[in-house]
Amino acid sequence: MTQKYQAHIYVTLRPSVLDPAGVAAESGLKQLGYEGVAEVRIGKYIELKLTAADEAQAQAQLDRICDQLLANPVIENYRFDLVEVSEHVGISG
Amino acid sequence: MTQKYQAHIYVTLRPSVLDPAGVAAESGLKQLGYEGVAEVRIGKYIELKLTAADEAQAQAQLDRICDQLLANPVIENYRFDLVEVSEHVGISG
Repeated sequence: MTQKYQAHIYVTLRPSVLDPAGVAAESGLKQLGYEGVAEVRIGKYIELKLTAADEAQAQAQLDRICDQLLANPVIENYRFDLVEVSEHVGISG
Repeated sequence: MTQKYQAHIYVTLRPSVLDPAGVAAESGLKQLGYEGVAEVRIGKYIELKLTAADEAQAQAQLDRICDQLLANPVIENYRFDLVEVSEHVGISG
């Protein structure tokens, strides 16, 4: 019996790593007149669905997925949240 | 009197828009053996600080910032949350 989960994953650059895209966005915003904007950091937000036997296994699988493909552990941190998706068999949406 | 806010912004492709990076990640994950992974969508997660007179003005400013620079309203949706940052004057962190 497997369960389906919706995962939201947040991948952010480690605080010590320079973020050129964030610096560029901040500079652009200041040129547009948003003087009060600071500390812009741009990361990734990933949504995916996965199947697993239970929540612990889903978390373990997601940890491996993030380490192997979605994040670069050398320069990035990640965190995620998991929501169980209830499947109504026979009533497809 | 201005307040400082921490904003978390989530920029996602509209559901009708094809996400080639998400498709590539999903295909990569399947090749790595994660068969249960589906519907991978890759968006942006942006953190920034901004100053505004109150929360309503901070929200209005963030709406303009997202429309003008951080998101492409033609193909992307965005949402954000705001947290007021308390500043302890004289005790700098």
